[in-house]
Amino acid sequence: MEARHFLCFLFIFFGLATLLLLTWINLPYPPPNATTDLFHPKRLNNYNPLSKPKRHHDHDHASDMPHHPLDPLTIKEINRVRTLLSSHALFKNTSSYALHSITLEEPAKPLVLNWKKGDPLLPRKAFVVARVKNKSYVLTVDLTTDEVDVQKTDTSSGYPMMTMEDMTSATWAPLLNAEFNRTIVGRGVDLTDLACLPISLGWFGQREENRRLIKVQCYSMKDTANFYMRPIEGLTVLLDMDTKQVVEITDKGRHIPIPKATNTDYRYSVQGLNREMEELINPISIEQPKGPSFVVEDEHFVKWANWEFHLKPDPRAGVVVSQARVKDPNSGEMRDVMYKGFTSELFVPYMDPTDAWYFKTYMDAGEYGFGLQAMPLDPLNDCPRNAYYMDGVFTAADGTPYVRSNMICIFESYAGDIGWRHAESPITGLEIREVRPKVTLVVRMAASVANYDYIVDWEFQTDGLIRIKVGLSGILMVKGTPYDHMSQVSVQENLFGTLLSENVIGVIHDHYITFHLDMDIDGSDNSFVKVNIQRQEASPGESPRRSYLKATRNVAKTEKDAQIKLKLYDPAEFHVINPNKTTRVGNPVGYKVVPGGTAASLLDPEDPPQKRGAFTNNQIWVTPYNRTEQWAGGLFVYQSHGEDTLAAWSDRDRPIENKDIVLWYTLGFHHIPCQEDFPIMPTVSSSFDLKPVNFFERNPILGTPPNVEKDLPVCKAAASA
Amino acid sequence: MEARHFLCFLFIFFGLATLLLLTWINLPYPPPNATTDLFHPKRLNNYNPLSKPKRHHDHDHASDMPHHPLDPLTIKEINRVRTLLSSHALFKNTSSYALHSITLEEPAKPLVLNWKKGDPLLPRKAFVVARVKNKSYVLTVDLTTDEVDVQKTDTSSGYPMMTMEDMTSATWAPLLNAEFNRTIVGRGVDLTDLACLPISLGWFGQREENRRLIKVQCYSMKDTANFYMRPIEGLTVLLDMDTKQVVEITDKGRHIPIPKATNTDYRYSVQGLNREMEELINPISIEQPKGPSFVVEDEHFVKWANWEFHLKPDPRAGVVVSQARVKDPNSGEMRDVMYKGFTSELFVPYMDPTDAWYFKTYMDAGEYGFGLQAMPLDPLNDCPRNAYYMDGVFTAADGTPYVRSNMICIFESYAGDIGWRHAESPITGLEIREVRPKVTLVVRMAASVANYDYIVDWEFQTDGLIRIKVGLSGILMVKGTPYDHMSQVSVQENLFGTLLSENVIGVIHDHYITFHLDMDIDGSDNSFVKVNIQRQEASPGESPRRSYLKATRNVAKTEKDAQIKLKLYDPAEFHVINPNKTTRVGNPVGYKVVPGGTAASLLDPEDPPQKRGAFTNNQIWVTPYNRTEQWAGGLFVYQSHGEDTLAAWSDRDRPIENKDIVLWYTLGFHHIPCQEDFPIMPTVSSSFDLKPVNFFERNPILGTPPNVEKDLPVCKAAASA
Repeated sequence: MEARHFLCFLFIFFGLATLLLLTWINLPYPPPNATTDLFHPKRLNNYNPLSKPKRHHDHDHASDMPHHPLDPLTIKEINRVRTLLSSHALFKNTSSYALHSITLEEPAKPLVLNWKKGDPLLPRKAFVVARVKNKSYVLTVDLTTDEVDVQKTDTSSGYPMMTMEDMTSATWAPLLNAEFNRTIVGRGVDLTDLACLPISLGWFGQREENRRLIKVQCYSMKDTANFYMRPIEGLTVLLDMDTKQVVEITDKGRHIPIPKATNTDYRYSVQGLNREMEELINPISIEQPKGPSFVVEDEHFVKWANWEFHLKPDPRAGVVVSQARVKDPNSGEMRDVMYKGFTSELFVPYMDPTDAWYFKTYMDAGEYGFGLQAMPLDPLNDCPRNAYYMDGVFTAADGTPYVRSNMICIFESYAGDIGWRHAESPITGLEIREVRPKVTLVVRMAASVANYDYIVDWEFQTDGLIRIKVGLSGILMVKGTPYDHMSQVSVQENLFGTLLSENVIGVIHDHYITFHLDMDIDGSDNSFVKVNIQRQEASPGESPRRSYLKATRNVAKTEKDAQIKLKLYDPAEFHVINPNKTTRVGNPVGYKVVPGGTAASLLDPEDPPQKRGAFTNNQIWVTPYNRTEQWAGGLFVYQSHGEDTLAAWSDRDRPIENKDIVLWYTLGFHHIPCQEDFPIMPTVSSSFDLKPVNFFERNPILGTPPNVEKDLPVCKAAASA
Repeated sequence: MEARHFLCFLFIFFGLATLLLLTWINLPYPPPNATTDLFHPKRLNNYNPLSKPKRHHDHDHASDMPHHPLDPLTIKEINRVRTLLSSHALFKNTSSYALHSITLEEPAKPLVLNWKKGDPLLPRKAFVVARVKNKSYVLTVDLTTDEVDVQKTDTSSGYPMMTMEDMTSATWAPLLNAEFNRTIVGRGVDLTDLACLPISLGWFGQREENRRLIKVQCYSMKDTANFYMRPIEGLTVLLDMDTKQVVEITDKGRHIPIPKATNTDYRYSVQGLNREMEELINPISIEQPKGPSFVVEDEHFVKWANWEFHLKPDPRAGVVVSQARVKDPNSGEMRDVMYKGFTSELFVPYMDPTDAWYFKTYMDAGEYGFGLQAMPLDPLNDCPRNAYYMDGVFTAADGTPYVRSNMICIFESYAGDIGWRHAESPITGLEIREVRPKVTLVVRMAASVANYDYIVDWEFQTDGLIRIKVGLSGILMVKGTPYDHMSQVSVQENLFGTLLSENVIGVIHDHYITFHLDMDIDGSDNSFVKVNIQRQEASPGESPRRSYLKATRNVAKTEKDAQIKLKLYDPAEFHVINPNKTTRVGNPVGYKVVPGGTAASLLDPEDPPQKRGAFTNNQIWVTPYNRTEQWAGGLFVYQSHGEDTLAAWSDRDRPIENKDIVLWYTLGFHHIPCQEDFPIMPTVSSSFDLKPVNFFERNPILGTPPNVEKDLPVCKAAASA
């Protein structure tokens, strides 16, 4: 061995050793291997890096008990599931398995609807998705009878949601490959500076079939925590997720420099004091001198103003809101609005057909776990001072439960907005000025799916409206380029995005977030009504007007009647009504979905990503309730072919009139990046509403009192306190 | 005369007398008549019925001085204008005139742009719209030279905005007509219970030409302050606004009962204590222990965080925001964003072609004065505790200035939202959680155009975004009906709306609010660029992907290129750029308009109301700057035929590339009323954004510090203070 080669070897060896050591230290859990018992009893640490105050009783969840049929599995229950599984035939004689999720198997809807507080708890069951010897299983574990029921083995395409261990191991597994390491060093990056990301690769044909694959792309984290801005462009590793073997390494980016670290780090500690910005805005806070107006009973049941609902974290959906009910101000009764609402799936296709980019068509819920990626919220910044926090209990691949602390926050918001108002003008001479402030209750989580951050808010208003809002922040997925100025780019050339900084392109992409909304308007039997707004021509002589708009009610009979593409020039309202109940003057009681954040997928319907993301083919869908149809992209989304999507279910065209129906709504964003998105994006939000429409006899917040000075707090600056 | 007739006469006589007396007492100013000097010196009282605290120095404005070239006319200046006019030939020998508006004639834009604080004030001029002997005049009064310049007399269609006196007199003039009074009594309403509204009648042909007309419809205010819910349906009085003579009385509603007062009053004092609602939500407040972060210099110049802008009330537009500039965090310089932004016109067509409804196609700015109708805001309810208030100085029909106190509020808002965030997941092992709270500055007014209340917010964000939001609240314009239950209505029958309560129909209508946005991105010469997003099919063999989206920039050459109808399946971004300036990496600096609240007018383009409201034919327009093109429906909107609208200007198809251009955006709402809108509507809001796009080199709020506990206030409940 020549001296030069030996030096090179030494360099690589120590680099690799250091990296492995660093990776190991930083891993939240050890990577699984043959010698590690996946069921080892060590409790995983909370991921709670900052020592910010936590706003609720800091109990350790070890003794949690379920109180409501929809309460998530407790640590005790999860441990019981692990014990039962470990003695089951399927798992007994192998260590080659992983538990991809262990969640509550919710009791049948009629049982839950009939259950009342104080009743005995319904039988508890776990829904388990497992991989055993490279096959996928769905199991039900009955915690009353101890029975384990293997409900389904994998027959169609697709794999379960990745485990955190799958994702983590993908970030270090390539480093066991010498060619990979040579390539990295060849690109001028120290192995110790390497940060790699696990990238789900979709499905484009035979290459992505019959084994669990993942692509890995890497970045330099030298001189910045924002390694996302320093891509080692064009380098893609194809990895077998089960064997951790590198299948293929492609490097098409040798000519592309790694963008500089300058101006990329966004951390306060690194940016240093920016005196000017610090002094721009005086401290501001939402204050409630008498405390918040909501209570969280039994850990998961929220009561606020005229609302009550069950709230729980879920590893796949993030936040699940169940049994939302609002009080009728006339009768005082709590009336059903929504049985269950949650983020069912996301679809994030990037718009670059080249080798290192074409496959980036993420489904963040079914591939990565939208809840698993919801990190602890930052008190005072993610949520205001008056927030309450709720923890999630999730499971590692070996079934070990762990606590994701502060995963959801709940707070009352007052932005200075107006609930309703009227003033009389001097024209009528009446001296009237009646105004009511608007206070809402927000339930929030924030998922960090690698670079991107999704802030999901469920906002409840006293007037019965529910606003579902998604904010996008975090960091762009960017592409390296040789260009450092637009003058170098010919008019013909397609950059697939925007030059954001020297050698950095922000690639165009879409975001679709599809919500499952099992509306139950005063009970489960509901209908979907399109209230079409159309121009009506006046008959000659009928009126000096030539035209006016007329609303026509059209009840959807079957699913295809409710496949809705929104049109500005063919508008409609979309009501979910109870056809068996009317108001005093005879209007059917209902809620409408008020679209917002509309962007439609324009991809070719036959493009493989669009087949998999076919649930974005319409903005609104309505399906009959079917407890197996929860996930718009299918139960097994990873590498799926798109046979089990909402689009496929809906095309069965089942009857939906006067039935238990589920409404689906997709929020969409086209994102052409701009320089303001570099190096971290100001939040962009969109929302849609679920709004009462002839649900109440009249304005339900007529009795809201106005603010008066004497009720407001007396405050002083903390420094002078 | 028979005894019965005499009794009837007595009844009517005393009723009428009482009503006149009441009306007189309640009038904010005496109705103009031949014996009253329109220029009498008595200062009009502020309309400030409630004795709520006012949050800024309560000075009487009598000694106000202008400080900025765009400052509105002061009381002194207005009085000087009156003096100059009174000695002008046009007015000298007649008392038969009215001054419909006296506002600042803004100096030429280049002069304003060159003016700096400390420079001598630019020559002050007044822009006066007057009616003299039934002719309309536009005059300029030069306050430096005392010259009065008669710029224009009326040649085309349309009349000036009504004066408050026009509107007020319409409410009592019909009572001078015996037939009207007989009709009212015949409908079972005491004249003392009568409330009448002045309703602009549009233009439908010869009948609405050659004289100023108005329609009057009336309501019973017996047992409720919410008389709007008690229409005397079908009764319409056609009135000559100049002579106050009744031209025609139509009563087609004798068979329609007047709806009951039950459940219609919304006042807190009348509803009585609603203990339950009172206790639903604990007091909540936005607190700033160190005070607000903004200053208002010289009464009209607002500085907050990285923003500065000039702000003034306007009788027609409401709020005018001028010379909005944002600080560049790199250079520290204040950069031009918008020269002038305001609500240019509203269009509110009702969708009922019948006799008493077809003409209801309001243009609230040009007919009623959007600013004139902006009543004093209610501290603590219309705006939070930390708000600052600005007064308007308007003029009566005789030119007398009066103060509309608390017409605009300015406050910092914090709703618990997130400016930007990123957390790293355990996948990468980095322990990062950086989150910044989002604080904004809101400028608000609320106009009560008879029944409806429009809340207009200009919200400034530190990331450079301006959100323009319109909230709709107030009271529906409803129609009486014999029906009290939907079961009485045949399927074929068109109600033109929703049965909201017994005998009350909420009639379907649209709202369009068109904004004039004179964008100046780093200077006046700008271009409008459509960034079209289109599907691109991948060539065979190019990629496993079949399709992706591509963004193509298309610069609008002329106005017709910029007549934009939004399409969900043919999306685009709409940029106003400075083609003469690029960022460091070569992108043109710009702002984009981000549509929201999109509803398109579907009326027949040849329908007279749509001709007059032709500015709603597109959602976006761009015109070259022309100081006479401020009002989208034309300067003289009242009874106009639609020759002078934005649509007519734009059809001239002038060049708009690399020119001083004006962007126009229309917010739209289709409103099918529902029972929740009865008897007063919970606020419905929509907004659109002006957002930097490659305007900054990078995220301009990177340096924002996070919230920390020690900066927040220490509060206690007031009761315990």
